[in-house]
Amino acid sequence: MYSPAMDAEQVASPSAQATVGSLRERKHSRTRQEIVEAALGLFARHGFDAVTVTDIARRAEVGRTTFFRYFPDKQDVLFADEADLNTLLAGAMDGAAAPFGPLGDSLRDCVGVTRAGLLALADAVARQAIASPARHGIVTGHPQLEASAWSRQRAYIETATRELVRHGADEGTAGLAAHVATGCYGQARAESGDEPQRLPEATTRAFERLNGLSSTTL
Amino acid sequence: MYSPAMDAEQVASPSAQATVGSLRERKHSRTRQEIVEAALGLFARHGFDAVTVTDIARRAEVGRTTFFRYFPDKQDVLFADEADLNTLLAGAMDGAAAPFGPLGDSLRDCVGVTRAGLLALADAVARQAIASPARHGIVTGHPQLEASAWSRQRAYIETATRELVRHGADEGTAGLAAHVATGCYGQARAESGDEPQRLPEATTRAFERLNGLSSTTL
Repeated sequence: MYSPAMDAEQVASPSAQATVGSLRERKHSRTRQEIVEAALGLFARHGFDAVTVTDIARRAEVGRTTFFRYFPDKQDVLFADEADLNTLLAGAMDGAAAPFGPLGDSLRDCVGVTRAGLLALADAVARQAIASPARHGIVTGHPQLEASAWSRQRAYIETATRELVRHGADEGTAGLAAHVATGCYGQARAESGDEPQRLPEATTRAFERLNGLSSTTL
Repeated sequence: MYSPAMDAEQVASPSAQATVGSLRERKHSRTRQEIVEAALGLFARHGFDAVTVTDIARRAEVGRTTFFRYFPDKQDVLFADEADLNTLLAGAMDGAAAPFGPLGDSLRDCVGVTRAGLLALADAVARQAIASPARHGIVTGHPQLEASAWSRQRAYIETATRELVRHGADEGTAGLAAHVATGCYGQARAESGDEPQRLPEATTRAFERLNGLSSTTL
């Protein structure tokens, strides 16, 4: 049976839920950030290997159980923003692919679209490294963490392949373009080394040199 | 002071050492092989995660201490021949680079030389997977091991870069060629998936398609 009170409730309720939801989300995101900052501070001061999850939890004023609700282990704290970077990569590729229409089997177009995504990624990584030099220093000084950072590039290949296929590339062309373009990015990372502010320029240069393989501009 | 006996001793001694050395080496290599076979048999039957180092050592009839003298952990048993594969890669590149003279800054020549090395590698990996399908099945079914197999491609990049530089390539060109060519190999691995016998053909095809970026043949 109809009652104006029900309408009011139905209208109020999602909005109230949204407020509760966003309060909870804000709290969640704040705690996460506190854990990241506590961990980076400790890693920078004592070295990655000497710091335990218990140390991080204590410094962030949370329990170990809370820590593990946010991160599977202390290494993942260092790569906390990988999901954001993959989203950024996909978004930038989406924008770059728009003018092309279906990418089909054009390796050249697929590499071009992926290049646009990886340039946006390189900019973001450089900004992040400049904002948080501690994190960059911790990873580059540590072979196991460097290997881990490298293996995370695999996610970029998967993101890029998916985005190219979504824009009509055939799977083989998309995969090859994603692998080759991420190879250029990998070389740019290697070249910029402990000067992350050079990453965007090194990425641009790697793609320009790849161009040397072809007669016309990508 | 000179004495003919000293000469005889000096001549005999290295040869005796070589015999002892090669006996020891043969024993070392046999034990290593027994550990690999024990591990592969157990992984294939019970799954990688369910098998412990103690299980492997018992099956190979060695102690845990002996196991750890050969391998840092059970995962490394699966990748026991990576050093051989890197040697093979370097050797094949060395042969391919010989006719070129100093590679300098030619990305095209550097990619071509690396392609020859990676084709030899693909052949060896395919032969090995056909000879030991258990190993291939264990790795491809397991996300963590696949990630580990992928991260081992980083060693191929380093080997290839070093070999190109040794043949007169400048460092940036060598690194970019190694990254891009290994990208082609990575795509071939992804495409051949659980049919490793297709890896050599997939590798050839990836490089042919990369060719599509350029006007003239690599």
